[in-house]
Amino acid sequence: MNRYMKKALDLAKMTKGQTGKNPPVGAVVVKEGSIIGMGAHYGYGQPHAERQALQSCNMDPRGADIYVTLEPCSHHGKTPPCTDAILEAGIRNVFYAEKDLNPKVSGHEVLANAGVSVEHTPDDETAALYRDFFNHLVRQRPNVTLKCAMSVDGKLALHDGTSKWITGEAARMDVHEARNVHDAILVGAHTLLHDNPRLTTRIEGGGRSPRPVVLLGAGALREDLEIFKHPKRPVIYTTNEDNLKYEDRCDVKTGDWSPAAVLRDLYEMGLTSIFVEGGASVLTSFIKEELYDQIFLYVAPKIFGESMHSLYREKIFSMDEAVQLELVDVEKLGPDFKITYRKA
Amino acid sequence: MNRYMKKALDLAKMTKGQTGKNPPVGAVVVKEGSIIGMGAHYGYGQPHAERQALQSCNMDPRGADIYVTLEPCSHHGKTPPCTDAILEAGIRNVFYAEKDLNPKVSGHEVLANAGVSVEHTPDDETAALYRDFFNHLVRQRPNVTLKCAMSVDGKLALHDGTSKWITGEAARMDVHEARNVHDAILVGAHTLLHDNPRLTTRIEGGGRSPRPVVLLGAGALREDLEIFKHPKRPVIYTTNEDNLKYEDRCDVKTGDWSPAAVLRDLYEMGLTSIFVEGGASVLTSFIKEELYDQIFLYVAPKIFGESMHSLYREKIFSMDEAVQLELVDVEKLGPDFKITYRKA
Repeated sequence: MNRYMKKALDLAKMTKGQTGKNPPVGAVVVKEGSIIGMGAHYGYGQPHAERQALQSCNMDPRGADIYVTLEPCSHHGKTPPCTDAILEAGIRNVFYAEKDLNPKVSGHEVLANAGVSVEHTPDDETAALYRDFFNHLVRQRPNVTLKCAMSVDGKLALHDGTSKWITGEAARMDVHEARNVHDAILVGAHTLLHDNPRLTTRIEGGGRSPRPVVLLGAGALREDLEIFKHPKRPVIYTTNEDNLKYEDRCDVKTGDWSPAAVLRDLYEMGLTSIFVEGGASVLTSFIKEELYDQIFLYVAPKIFGESMHSLYREKIFSMDEAVQLELVDVEKLGPDFKITYRKA
Repeated sequence: MNRYMKKALDLAKMTKGQTGKNPPVGAVVVKEGSIIGMGAHYGYGQPHAERQALQSCNMDPRGADIYVTLEPCSHHGKTPPCTDAILEAGIRNVFYAEKDLNPKVSGHEVLANAGVSVEHTPDDETAALYRDFFNHLVRQRPNVTLKCAMSVDGKLALHDGTSKWITGEAARMDVHEARNVHDAILVGAHTLLHDNPRLTTRIEGGGRSPRPVVLLGAGALREDLEIFKHPKRPVIYTTNEDNLKYEDRCDVKTGDWSPAAVLRDLYEMGLTSIFVEGGASVLTSFIKEELYDQIFLYVAPKIFGESMHSLYREKIFSMDEAVQLELVDVEKLGPDFKITYRKA
């Protein structure tokens, strides 16, 4: 990867998780071998990375090159097209790493027709950054990450339900990093009512807490729930109309919501990535319905033995029907380790 | 670590797994900044590394230094004491990395009393090499490695027993490397009679097949078993006296053998390391009796769901009673990964 594109990618990664329906993008303006401007897209509705970079220039960018992680947009959305800004600035060469899959975007063509040299220089690392983003566009639902802390033998708890804090500090910190880059965090009724979690992001410097979402089923909300103190308004999907009396503190959506319907609804609310933190029955339903993109497993160095509190509570009747995953990475986290799988 | 000791350690590692009740040892003789001799211990009853290295010298070792991974022996065993050889050769300085825990060995003292400079220079890597060896001396039973190929959710098979070949080529090759450094390989009745495995080491260059051992219980041997073609004579523990009719092809040991009794018996036969390859009930009994030193788990990227064919088929009644392990390493092996745990 070109060294300037690498810097643009680093800029894009800095805002990953805070750009909502927009992808994170970074841009670097280079003139006579020096960086004269850098920028990133900070959030939905705000200027794109190219404009940020051009505005930050400490000298006239006429004749400069621009390196952008994503193809510049050519359409009027919340902001005017980046191609206009690039043409007005008199940029000579445009390099971009990832093609925009949005059919409304044809920045390459617009710029080339205007006489600017445009080069598509793809690389694996940038492609990985955008895989999630284009995935939700293609599927028209949020990206779904399933998270599970479990024993070596795939159990979330002992047979009697005992479970809390099975992983160590490093694994728990990693979970907070993951919460920080997701728009929403989803748990089931048992986790909400039994563990009463805060569902906030607790990392150094504060971080960004994902919006709490609960599949409550017939469960009943209670005054003492920690999620009512959450900085973002919780969303509750429930069949129990009694819960409507908590409408001052959360969105209560009554009815018989399937996981797929919940995801569609969250997507319509502008939430593009969901971190599903269990418990077992929620994980099972998302796996069974194939409604996930990746799985983070945090494995504690313990064997729990026979227990129904398992990652996947369904019976499988032939090897062809076994849930097939794709291993992305394994990583030691102190006494525990983390496995990252993608849906195969 | 000193560069010559590193070479001695490399020599020791080359014979790991073929030295039986003796530890692997490497030695390097250095004179005026040049290596003038190198050696390793090749096998039980054969000359020790120090003698091999001294014999290989291309010049008179008088006044030279010797680097040995383990404290030189000072007693008459199968071979005469290494301290004698070192004194006869006129070595000036002896460096050794690991202290010998065998109470009969006091090489350091013997050499120092004879006026040789002796230095104990321990390092972590050499200590790791000898941990297993001293473990069996301390416990008076073979080192036990439990091996299991399983799904992400800790299942060895689907609920109906379907299982074969769940991991890929790289994981299977790693299993053969592990067989190569163990003296014996142990399986239960179900694995023997249902899978009819060969239990040989199949690696490039041939390798060394571990002696096959079966906990057959009441099971019955059959003519067509692949283990009868194994290069080493199988050992069968069984309550079923009908199996005695196969005594021409294997050792048949009748009676009600507990795992602990089996390990003691194998140790008396000179087997110092056992690779336990399952299935589920054998693994469960060794874990339950705490008769293991390390566990190799090969995890396929599959979820099997509910199944009784689990790594550990016991119920646990409080978090304190959960089997506690110590994570040594996680490693990607193609689409699968391997976890190495030690008993905590």
